[in-house]
Amino acid sequence: MSARPTLEELNQMPRDAFLAQLGDVFEHAPWVTGSVVDQRPFSSVAAMHAAMLASVRALPEEKLVALLAGHPALAGAAARAGTMTADSTREQGALALEKLPEEQMAHWDALNSAYQAKFGFPFIICVRRHTLASVLRSFARRLAADRASELVAAVEEIGRVSRLRLAARIENHGMDEIVGRLTTHVLDAARGKPAPAVRVELFEKSTAGMHPIAQGVTNGDGRTAEPLLDGMPLRIGTYELRFHVGDYFRSLGEGDTEMPFLDVVPIAFGIGEPESHYHVPLSITPWAYSTYRGSY
Amino acid sequence: MSARPTLEELNQMPRDAFLAQLGDVFEHAPWVTGSVVDQRPFSSVAAMHAAMLASVRALPEEKLVALLAGHPALAGAAARAGTMTADSTREQGALALEKLPEEQMAHWDALNSAYQAKFGFPFIICVRRHTLASVLRSFARRLAADRASELVAAVEEIGRVSRLRLAARIENHGMDEIVGRLTTHVLDAARGKPAPAVRVELFEKSTAGMHPIAQGVTNGDGRTAEPLLDGMPLRIGTYELRFHVGDYFRSLGEGDTEMPFLDVVPIAFGIGEPESHYHVPLSITPWAYSTYRGSY
Amino acid sequence: MSARPTLEELNQMPRDAFLAQLGDVFEHAPWVTGSVVDQRPFSSVAAMHAAMLASVRALPEEKLVALLAGHPALAGAAARAGTMTADSTREQGALALEKLPEEQMAHWDALNSAYQAKFGFPFIICVRRHTLASVLRSFARRLAADRASELVAAVEEIGRVSRLRLAARIENHGMDEIVGRLTTHVLDAARGKPAPAVRVELFEKSTAGMHPIAQGVTNGDGRTAEPLLDGMPLRIGTYELRFHVGDYFRSLGEGDTEMPFLDVVPIAFGIGEPESHYHVPLSITPWAYSTYRGSY
Amino acid sequence: MSARPTLEELNQMPRDAFLAQLGDVFEHAPWVTGSVVDQRPFSSVAAMHAAMLASVRALPEEKLVALLAGHPALAGAAARAGTMTADSTREQGALALEKLPEEQMAHWDALNSAYQAKFGFPFIICVRRHTLASVLRSFARRLAADRASELVAAVEEIGRVSRLRLAARIENHGMDEIVGRLTTHVLDAARGKPAPAVRVELFEKSTAGMHPIAQGVTNGDGRTAEPLLDGMPLRIGTYELRFHVGDYFRSLGEGDTEMPFLDVVPIAFGIGEPESHYHVPLSITPWAYSTYRGSY
Repeated sequence: MSARPTLEELNQMPRDAFLAQLGDVFEHAPWVTGSVVDQRPFSSVAAMHAAMLASVRALPEEKLVALLAGHPALAGAAARAGTMTADSTREQGALALEKLPEEQMAHWDALNSAYQAKFGFPFIICVRRHTLASVLRSFARRLAADRASELVAAVEEIGRVSRLRLAARIENHGMDEIVGRLTTHVLDAARGKPAPAVRVELFEKSTAGMHPIAQGVTNGDGRTAEPLLDGMPLRIGTYELRFHVGDYFRSLGEGDTEMPFLDVVPIAFGIGEPESHYHVPLSITPWAYSTYRGSY
Repeated sequence: MSARPTLEELNQMPRDAFLAQLGDVFEHAPWVTGSVVDQRPFSSVAAMHAAMLASVRALPEEKLVALLAGHPALAGAAARAGTMTADSTREQGALALEKLPEEQMAHWDALNSAYQAKFGFPFIICVRRHTLASVLRSFARRLAADRASELVAAVEEIGRVSRLRLAARIENHGMDEIVGRLTTHVLDAARGKPAPAVRVELFEKSTAGMHPIAQGVTNGDGRTAEPLLDGMPLRIGTYELRFHVGDYFRSLGEGDTEMPFLDVVPIAFGIGEPESHYHVPLSITPWAYSTYRGSY
Repeated sequence: MSARPTLEELNQMPRDAFLAQLGDVFEHAPWVTGSVVDQRPFSSVAAMHAAMLASVRALPEEKLVALLAGHPALAGAAARAGTMTADSTREQGALALEKLPEEQMAHWDALNSAYQAKFGFPFIICVRRHTLASVLRSFARRLAADRASELVAAVEEIGRVSRLRLAARIENHGMDEIVGRLTTHVLDAARGKPAPAVRVELFEKSTAGMHPIAQGVTNGDGRTAEPLLDGMPLRIGTYELRFHVGDYFRSLGEGDTEMPFLDVVPIAFGIGEPESHYHVPLSITPWAYSTYRGSY
Repeated sequence: MSARPTLEELNQMPRDAFLAQLGDVFEHAPWVTGSVVDQRPFSSVAAMHAAMLASVRALPEEKLVALLAGHPALAGAAARAGTMTADSTREQGALALEKLPEEQMAHWDALNSAYQAKFGFPFIICVRRHTLASVLRSFARRLAADRASELVAAVEEIGRVSRLRLAARIENHGMDEIVGRLTTHVLDAARGKPAPAVRVELFEKSTAGMHPIAQGVTNGDGRTAEPLLDGMPLRIGTYELRFHVGDYFRSLGEGDTEMPFLDVVPIAFGIGEPESHYHVPLSITPWAYSTYRGSY
C-alpha cells in the first residue's frame, strides 16, 4: 500500500485503518468519518464525501453548532498561537493572514468577534478558494445575513474544506470537479499562426496593488507549457494577465520601435468560479487585439 | 482687427505691424520673421511657416549654431531662474520640469552639459509633443547621434516649435496638420448598440506610475462629448484608457455581480505620432472585448 | 414658390392650394387632408402627419373599412390593369410585382382573395419598406391574425405610406425618422489603418438567389463615398455584403496568392428596422476578421 | 500478422513478402520497392518512403520519363476505359472526373495532349490533395512551365501519391505529416460559453456553385463531435462554412425573431495547405462575430 491509499484500498481496509487514514477530514470530528465506515464500499470518492456530508447535515442544530465551534477563527488566536490543526494551518497560511499588519489583525478580531456574537459559532470559509480581498468581501456579506442562512453557508463551506482534504489523502481520487484552471493562448492574427515566445505574466490584484503569482512563455502552439494556474481550486479574486507583445513584434522586425501602439497588453479579469476552467486567450496584431473567456 | 489677426490681415498689414505680431515666433530671432515680410501675401499659414523655415535652413552653419544657442536648455538654469521667454516658459512648463526633485535636476544638468559639450549648442526639442518619459528617451538617443544629424534634428524641432507658436498667434490658421486627437467609442456587442453612460478615464503612464489626464462618459452614441485629447499635438508617450464596463453591465442587471469577469477594462497604448488621430474604441460583452487603433 | 412647397409655405397658403398640394397623400381620401387644414400652422411635418393620422384613427369602423377599401390590392387587378394612382404604381413598382411569373400571380390572387374574404378589406402594407420575401412573410403572418389586430395593422401601414408621400411633397421636410441607411468601413487590422480601394458589393437575397443592388469602393478613410443604401426607408429583408479583400491584400504583395485563406468575405445580415442606420464594418487581416452592427 | 503489416513486421519479413506487400506503391514500378528491400530495417515509414523516392530521384532522365509514362492521364482514356490500377481508380475517382460532361472531357483531352506533346510525359498530380477547380488551375500553370521544372514537379507529385499509398498499406504508419484537418468551435461571446447545438455545414465552392461535403452540430464544448474534415490530406480549394446561429439564438429566446441581424453566418475561406490543421472558429453574439484561422 502506498502512502496515499486508493479508493479501492480504502474500501477494503480494516475499520481502524480507514479511521486512521481519514479521521481528520472533518476538523476535530472523527465521528463523521466513523459514520460512513460501514457504508463501504463506495463507488467513488465523491460518493464517500457525500455520505460524510449527509451525516453532518443530519445533525440536530445544537450538535451542528458544536461541530462548527471546533473550527478555528480565521486569522484568530489559534492561528497566531500556532495551535491549529496541520490542515488548517496550511489552508489559512496561503493567505499569509498571520503576517497581516497589526491594525488589520485588529480588524479581523473585530469581524470574528462580531460574527461569533451574532451567530454563536465562528465564521467558516474554505480559504483555499479565496484571495484576501474576496474573503473580506464574503465576511462582510455573511455578517449581514441571518442565522438560518449562515448555518447553511457554514455547512457548505465545511463541505468544500473536507472535500479538498479528502482529495489530498487519496491516490487517484478522480474528483475533477474540485480543480480550476487558468490557461491562455496567443494568436498572431496578422499571420494566422500561434505567436511563440511571448512572455505572459499573471498578477493578483488587491487594494495593495499587483502581486505576481505566475508567468510563462508561449510555445510553438501559442500556449504556455503549463496552465498559469492549475491543480486546485482557483481563488476568487481579480487578476491581470500581461502579454509582452511588443517584444514579440520587435523580434519580427515589426512595429514602430520608437513608440509602438501596443507593447504590454493588460487583460484585467475576475475569477468567480474557483472550480472552473478559465481560458483567456489573446488574438493580436500590432494595432488591434481581442480577448474573451473561453472554457476549453 | 481682433486680438489675433487672420492670415488675410497679416498679408495686408504694414511691415512693422507684421513684425510686431510675429517677431517672436523664432526664439530670440526676429530676423526670421523679417526675412519673409516681403514675400507676402502667403496663400496659407503653412506656406508662411515654410518660408520662415527656409530662411533658417539657408543659414551657414556658424549662424545656425548661433540661432540654436538662443534657445534655453530644458529644465536648465534659465528655466529655474525664470528668465525664459513667455513662450518657452509655457512650453516647458507643461512637463513641470521645474518641479522635478533635486536628484533629477542634477540628471538634467548632466545631460544638458554633455549635449552642449559634444555638439556646441543646446538640446532643442518641441516639448509640447512629449511626455517627460519620451523627452528623456529622445535625449539619450540624440546624445548618441553625430553632429550632422543633430543639426538637422535641431532645425526640425525648431520648425515644430515655431509652427505651434505661429498657429497660436493667428485666427483661423487652418493648420489641421498640427492637431492630434484621441477619441473612443464603446459598442455593446451583445446588443448591437452603442453603450451609453460608460465612464472612461485616461492616464499617462510613466516610471512613476499612472497620472490621470482626462475622463469622460459615453453618450447615446457611445462616444464622449469631447475627444479625450484634442486641439494641439498629442504627447509622445504611453497611456492607459480605463473603461468602467462593470458598472454599465450592472446597470443593465447583467453579469455575475459578486465577481464579474470584466469590470474595469484597461487598454494600454503608445502614442508615437503626435499630429495624428488616435481612435481607440472598445467593442464589448460581459465576457469578451476587442479594440484597435482606428483613425476616423 | 418652388415646385415643392416648404412647411412654412404650406402653413400660410390658401386652403384650396393646400388641398391641391396634399389632397392625395391618403389614397382616394382627400378629406383626410381637409380635416387638418384649419389646424394650421403646424410646427413640423411630423406634427401635420400626426394630425392627419389622428383623423383616420377617429373614424368609426364602418368608415375606416371604406377608407381601406380604397387601396389597391398588392399585385392585384388594378396593378395589372394600370389603373392605380401614380403613387401606388410607383410604390408597388419597386418590387416589380407586375412582372411576376403567372403561377406566382395566381398565388398573389389567392392571398388577396383570402385576406379580403376573411377581413372585408384589402391587404395593405407599406411596400417601400419591404422586399418581395418580407412582403410574403408578412402576408402569411397577417392572414393568420384576427380582425381587430388587422384593423390596427392596416392603419399603421397607411400611416407609413402617407408619411412617405407627405415627405416626397414637401421641401426640407425634416423627417429624419423615415430615413434608413446602410454604411460600411474596412479597417486593415494588421496595419492599424483604413483599407482603401476595397471593392464592396451589396446583394439582396431571396429564395431566387442573390440580386446585386449596390456597390462601392473604399476611399482613404476605408469608407465608400456614398452610403450603400440611403435616402428612404431600407427594405426589410436579407442581404449580403461582399468585401473583395483578396485583391486588396494582393495589391500589398501579401497573402498566399496561390490560394489565400480569405479572398471575398461575405457578410450575410438581415435588416428588420427600415428607418434605422445599419453600419456594418469589417476589421480584417489576411487571416482573421470581425464585423458587427454599429449605428453611427 | 494482420491484414496490414506494421513497420516492424515489414522490417523483418522475407524479401518476397515485402515486395508483395508494397510492390505497387509506385505505379507500374515494383523495382522502386525492390531497391530498398536490403536497406531494411527502417526506423520509420517516412524513412522508408524517403529511401524509395531517393531511388526515383537517382534515375537518369530517360528512365525517369519512362517511369512517369507509366502513370495514367487524368480523366484520360484509361480512366474512361476502366483499365487503371485500383489505386489510381480510387484516387481519380474522388473528383468524379469520369462523370464530367462531354465538353469538359474534350477540354481535359486537349490539356492532356498539350502537356504530353510539350513535355513528353503525362501530367501527374496527387489528386487526393485537390478539388477539381484547383487541379485545373494547377494544370494551366504547369502547362506554362518549362520541362526542367515539370520533371521536378512530377517527381514531387509522385512522392505525394506514393506516400499516401504507403500509409494506406501499413498499420500505425505514424506519418502525421500527411494528415490535414478542419475543425471549428462556436463561442457565445455574450455569455462567455461555448454555444451548443449549432448546426454547421461545410460546402466546397466551385464555378458550378456550392456542394455540401460535411456537416455537424456543436456539442457542449462548442465543437463538432468529429473534425469536419480529417484523416487524409485536405483538398486545395475554396470552401464555405455556414453556422446556423439564428436557430441557436432563437432557442435562447433572443434576437428579433421577425428578421434577425444574423441568421446563417457564412465563412468563405481557401485551403492551400492540404497537410495542415485549419481551425476556423466563430465567436458570436446576435449582433457581432469574428473568425480567424487558428491551427490547434
